Amino acid sequence: MALIVHKYGGTSMGSTERIKNVAKRVAKWHDAGYQIVVVPSAMSGETNRIIGLAKEIMAEPDPRELDMIASTGEQVSVGLLSMALQSLGKKAVSYAGWQVPIKTDSAYTKARISSIDDAKVKADLAAGKIVIITGFQGVDDLGNITTLGRGGSDTSAVAIAAAMKAQECLIYTDVDGVYTTDPRVVSDARRLNTITFEEMLEMASLGSKVLQIRSVEFAGNYRMPTRVLSSLTDPLMPLAEEIVSGTLISFEEDTNMEQATITGIAFNRDEAKLTVFGVPDKPGIAYQILGPVADANIEVDMIIQNQSVEGKTDFTFTVPRADYNKAMEVLNASVKAHIGAGNIIGDAKVSKVSVVGVGMRSHVGIASQMFRTLSEEGINIQMISTSEIKISVLIDEKYMELAVRALHKAFGLESA
Amino acid sequence: MALIVHKYGGTSMGSTERIKNVAKRVAKWHDAGYQIVVVPSAMSGETNRIIGLAKEIMAEPDPRELDMIASTGEQVSVGLLSMALQSLGKKAVSYAGWQVPIKTDSAYTKARISSIDDAKVKADLAAGKIVIITGFQGVDDLGNITTLGRGGSDTSAVAIAAAMKAQECLIYTDVDGVYTTDPRVVSDARRLNTITFEEMLEMASLGSKVLQIRSVEFAGNYRMPTRVLSSLTDPLMPLAEEIVSGTLISFEEDTNMEQATITGIAFNRDEAKLTVFGVPDKPGIAYQILGPVADANIEVDMIIQNQSVEGKTDFTFTVPRADYNKAMEVLNASVKAHIGAGNIIGDAKVSKVSVVGVGMRSHVGIASQMFRTLSEEGINIQMISTSEIKISVLIDEKYMELAVRALHKAFGLESA
Repeated sequence: MALIVHKYGGTSMGSTERIKNVAKRVAKWHDAGYQIVVVPSAMSGETNRIIGLAKEIMAEPDPRELDMIASTGEQVSVGLLSMALQSLGKKAVSYAGWQVPIKTDSAYTKARISSIDDAKVKADLAAGKIVIITGFQGVDDLGNITTLGRGGSDTSAVAIAAAMKAQECLIYTDVDGVYTTDPRVVSDARRLNTITFEEMLEMASLGSKVLQIRSVEFAGNYRMPTRVLSSLTDPLMPLAEEIVSGTLISFEEDTNMEQATITGIAFNRDEAKLTVFGVPDKPGIAYQILGPVADANIEVDMIIQNQSVEGKTDFTFTVPRADYNKAMEVLNASVKAHIGAGNIIGDAKVSKVSVVGVGMRSHVGIASQMFRTLSEEGINIQMISTSEIKISVLIDEKYMELAVRALHKAFGLESA
Repeated sequence: MALIVHKYGGTSMGSTERIKNVAKRVAKWHDAGYQIVVVPSAMSGETNRIIGLAKEIMAEPDPRELDMIASTGEQVSVGLLSMALQSLGKKAVSYAGWQVPIKTDSAYTKARISSIDDAKVKADLAAGKIVIITGFQGVDDLGNITTLGRGGSDTSAVAIAAAMKAQECLIYTDVDGVYTTDPRVVSDARRLNTITFEEMLEMASLGSKVLQIRSVEFAGNYRMPTRVLSSLTDPLMPLAEEIVSGTLISFEEDTNMEQATITGIAFNRDEAKLTVFGVPDKPGIAYQILGPVADANIEVDMIIQNQSVEGKTDFTFTVPRADYNKAMEVLNASVKAHIGAGNIIGDAKVSKVSVVGVGMRSHVGIASQMFRTLSEEGINIQMISTSEIKISVLIDEKYMELAVRALHKAFGLESA
C-alpha cells in the first residue's frame, strides 16, 4: 500500500470544527486504501499565545525553555486530530516528536533534523492505524525538546515523508498552490500544476511564502515529491491516478516539457540598497565590506560589483529594509575608513522583481524581453543580478506592482 | 544541603505576574541555602480548556489521546517558571515527566507512579540549578504519556520528595493550611499546626479538600513530611528552624503530645442512603448486595448492618448523592429478587458529620459527648459508624451546619 504524508497548517487546524474536517479528509484517503501519516501544526494563534506568555516573563527567554513550551501547541493538535479520527471509526495514534523519535541537533528554536526512526510508525501503519506526528519539533541526543523554527511543520512533514519513502507529501494550506505571481498583485495570475525544485526555491525565497524554504531544500535533497494544496477549497480526495489539485514540486526530468519558458514573476517589496563608492579594486575587498555586515547578523541579498575604472570600483548590495539603518551604521563605523573608500549612499525604498524559470536556460532573449518591457513602462532599472534560472532587477518601490503586472503579461503567464 | 520540594497549584501559577511571584519565593529559599525542586500545576483553567476541546470532538475521548493533550498545560508551566527564575539570575532547568523519567503504569487518566529516576535531577541540583518538574504526569514503559488524574500534581510532588529523600514537601495552595473544620461553616475554625497522617486521611476523604487523597497516602507510605501552606498570604520564607506556617502532616510519634483529643470536625454534604429491609442473615449477603453496586462503578461510603432478628436483618449503605438514582436502580433490578429481600427505601437528603482525632484512641467518652451535643440541638442521628480515630453520624441534610458548629464548640476547637 502506498504511503501518503499529509501536512495541515494552523488555519486548517484552527478550531475543533476544522479539525473534524481535516479528519474527514484524512479518513477519505485512508478509505481509498492509502497508508496515512498526518503532521498537523498547532491550532492557529496558539504558539504565538504561548510565546507571548514567555515574553511577558522575560524579553529574551532561554531558548531551551522556549522550545519546552512552544512545542505544546502541536502536542494538543495531534491528540485532538487522533480523537477526531477515532470518532469517525478509524484506528489512530498520535506521537510527539520525542516519541517517534525525530532526532535533531541541539540548536534550540532552529534545530535541524538528524534522523527519524520509523519502526514504531511502520508497525502502526501495518496494523491499520493512521499515525499523527507533531510537526515543528524533535528531541536532541540528551532528551531535550527542540523546535525547528517557525513554519517547521512543513519541514517535519517532508522529512518524515522522505524517511519513510512516501509516494507524495501533501502540504495542505490556505492557498491552493503556487502561482505565476501573487494573485493580490496580478488578478489573473495562474496556478502552476508543477514546478521544479529549483524554481520553487527561487519563488519561495523571493517572497511567495507558501512553503518554508527549508522544507523545499529537504524535498530537494531527498527528491521527495511534495504538493502544495488547499484544505479549504480542494475536494476531499482527488482520484489516485490523477492528483490534479495544487502544485507539485517535481523531480522528474520531463515534467517541465510542456512548461512555458518562464514559470513566474517573484518579487520582494522590502529591500534597501547601500553603495560604497571609490572602493580600491584589490583582493579581499568584498569580504572587508560584507564581513562586518554579516557579523551584525544582517542578511545580504543582491551583491553587485562592476568593472573597476582607474583602480577604483563601486560596491552595492541590498539588505532587508528593517536592517537598513543598522547596515548604514556598520559601514560608516567600521568599513569606510578601514578600506579607504569614498562616499556611502543608500536607498531604503527599492523593490526587487525577478523573472524565474528553468526554461530560460535554453532560451536566449529572456533578459532583453524583460528589460524592454520595463523600459516601455518607463521603469528605470537600478541593479541587475542573474542566475541560471532567474533574472532579478532592483527598481523604485513605487513601480513594483506595475512592473510585476507588465512582466506577467509580457511572458504570457495569465490564465487562459 | 537540605532538599525541599515546592508544589504550586493552578491558582498560584494563574498568570505571568503570579508565576513571577512564585519565582521570587523559590529564589528566596534557594538564597537561604536549600536545594529546590519545584512541581507546578498547569495555569488555572488551562487543563479544563484543553479537555473542553477534546469533548467538542467526541463525548468520550480516547484516554491515551486525552493524556497526550492534558499533559501540555504543566509543560507550559515548567518552562515559564524556569524562565522566571532565570530572569532573577538563577540557574534553572525544566523537565517533563518523561524526561526525568517518572515511570507509571499504563492506566491512562489515572496512572500510578512506579518509579522515579533522580540521577539527572541530582546532577542539576549539585550544579546549583533549581529543577522544575511537571506535576500530574509520567510515562509508561512503552513511552506513552500518562496522567495521574485531577489534582495529581500533589501526588507528583510528594512522590518526588519521597524518592529524593527531601527534608520536606511544601504544598503551596490558596488556603493556608488544614482547619479544625471548614471556616465557611464555622467562622472561628482554627488552623492546625500539625496533623497526623491518619487524621489527614480522614479529614481529606471526608471533604476537607485541601490535598488530593492519593498524595496523602503517598506521604504516609514513605513517611514524607508534607506541609500545606498558602502562596498568597504566607511570608516568602519562614526561618529554617521554625517553619510555623501552614499545617504539617507529620509522622513523628510525639508531635501529637500537646494536641487536643479531637483534631477537627469533617463533613460531607452530598450523601444519600439506601436501606434493604428483611435481608436473610447468611454468609455472602453483603457481597451479593454491594457487588452489583460496585460493578456499576458506584462508590460506597458508610455500611451498616445491625444484629439480625429472627434470621432477618436490615442492610444500609451510603453513596455519593449523584449516584443515588443509579444505585436504587441496581438494587431493584438485580439485588432485591435475587436475595429475597423485602422493601428497599432511600433518602437522598442526608449529610455525614465526623469527629476526627488520634487522641480519641485513649479517651473514653468522645462518642457520648458527641451524641449528647447533637441531642441537645434536637438533631436525630440516623446512622453511626466508627473507626479508630473518628466517629461519623448520618443526619438530615438541613441540620448539617448546625451540627458542625455545635460539635466544633463542644470539643473546644475554636481559635483562642
